[in-house]
Amino acid sequence: MRTIVDRYRVTDGKGFRLEHYDPRDTAGHLVRREDADAMLAHGVERLSQLQEKLYAQDRWSVLCVLQAMDAAGKDGTIKHVMSGVNPQGVQVTCFKAPSEEALSHDFLWRAVRALPARGHIGIFNRSHYEDVLVVRVHPELLETQHLPPELVGKNIWSERLESIAAFERYLARQGVVVLKFFLHLSKEEQRRRFLARLEEKDKYWKFSANDLSERAFWDRYRHAYQEAIAATASRHAPWFVVPADNKWFTRLVVVAAIIDALEALDLRVPRPTAAQLEALEAARVALEAEATGA
Amino acid sequence: MRTIVDRYRVTDGKGFRLEHYDPRDTAGHLVRREDADAMLAHGVERLSQLQEKLYAQDRWSVLCVLQAMDAAGKDGTIKHVMSGVNPQGVQVTCFKAPSEEALSHDFLWRAVRALPARGHIGIFNRSHYEDVLVVRVHPELLETQHLPPELVGKNIWSERLESIAAFERYLARQGVVVLKFFLHLSKEEQRRRFLARLEEKDKYWKFSANDLSERAFWDRYRHAYQEAIAATASRHAPWFVVPADNKWFTRLVVVAAIIDALEALDLRVPRPTAAQLEALEAARVALEAEATGA
Repeated sequence: MRTIVDRYRVTDGKGFRLEHYDPRDTAGHLVRREDADAMLAHGVERLSQLQEKLYAQDRWSVLCVLQAMDAAGKDGTIKHVMSGVNPQGVQVTCFKAPSEEALSHDFLWRAVRALPARGHIGIFNRSHYEDVLVVRVHPELLETQHLPPELVGKNIWSERLESIAAFERYLARQGVVVLKFFLHLSKEEQRRRFLARLEEKDKYWKFSANDLSERAFWDRYRHAYQEAIAATASRHAPWFVVPADNKWFTRLVVVAAIIDALEALDLRVPRPTAAQLEALEAARVALEAEATGA
Repeated sequence: MRTIVDRYRVTDGKGFRLEHYDPRDTAGHLVRREDADAMLAHGVERLSQLQEKLYAQDRWSVLCVLQAMDAAGKDGTIKHVMSGVNPQGVQVTCFKAPSEEALSHDFLWRAVRALPARGHIGIFNRSHYEDVLVVRVHPELLETQHLPPELVGKNIWSERLESIAAFERYLARQGVVVLKFFLHLSKEEQRRRFLARLEEKDKYWKFSANDLSERAFWDRYRHAYQEAIAATASRHAPWFVVPADNKWFTRLVVVAAIIDALEALDLRVPRPTAAQLEALEAARVALEAEATGA
């Protein structure tokens, strides 16, 4: 699985081009479709074990950022990769349109409030990147952010990207393992998925007219994603450009990337100190001395 | 399963006595130990389906409060009942010792901040009940709450319980389904579990000397629990007194109670209005008109 993860990890944005990544890719002979379900189940089980150690050790935390065009499979990936992991150690935050309170603050403010605590895995379904994606594609949204006009210059997007990179470098230094996933969907596959949603009555509620209007901005989004990935991919906060035209493959890559990052941490259950061992032994003696059948 | 849930549900505290409930109970012939794992797996699957509808319908939310003595199995119950449910719709909040910020507010403040949003299931691992449990057993903790002295009278516990009951009635009226679980452990089983933790190196970290000192207050806690359940059990916010000496049975009762409450809601995926249907149809036509292979 490590070979697969390596294939999609971007740790240096220099020369990064989205067109070098095929949304339909499934890593050729490395994975067979018929093995995928068993591999995913095995991955979720392994992730569950690693998460328990992460929680017990209480030193590191993991932040998984999921970004994508509509219908690329963010919700389904979260469901299939993270169901099976103890929810006590996982928290999912959906970044919808910002509230008035959020708009009254800096753009990283709501991301900071949703950061996972030590020992926890945080999942951002969309994230602080929306401020260099949807806001970049629709710059009129900038007005809702009430910035002093002299701070809104022509370099605003590169400045924001630089601020995001610095923020993520800071998080890494604080023990937050930052993993960023771009679920890379083709425009044609989005069309097929939208049509499928419109044909199944139980999926109507997942479709909004807004989805279609955003599709009209496909190329601008693609450009914004490319710029964002190029400017913020780094060793301590890598991007994974995950092929998203095949859901089974998307999920495998995401679970493999999280496992890979957790395994690099050398997680272990904390060992008690000599003084703690003494206290534990005293507790054991006291408990054994109690009459049974109390 | 409904018969089992009925057996442990308390909706009226009048005459409630903990001694009427046996921590070792496993509902006799209604459930066989050898069927329990399959029943739990089936329950988790059913819960997962119901949670999807809850999320899609976006009207109700569910708040599950878990309270118990140490080692009664709160963490394990959360893990085994809620793993398998989409974490995007579930959030677990652990109520540890309150922060200075929390202590500077009313005692329900931190519970309010952790309430589940509509469509979500919230799990409180401990809760606002700590303020009528640990604080009642150790009344010196009241001083840390900086209350005006004239508000700390001899009726403080019954006043707090009345406030909690009113709070939960309000939540019910706002669409929050409140379910409260007391995992009812015997003192002897707690002793066995503490000793087991002290014998397994990988479980050391779960034991603190504080656990043992709290055990010395067993009878006072038991009294505080009895008073709390008696004062706050109601039809809209029932308590479940769940036998906790057998972990497999505890988990079955909890999953069955949540399923039972969700099934009573008649959840369904929202149906679009006529105007929405028209917009959906327009979207379908537009998508189909696009050239394929874009």
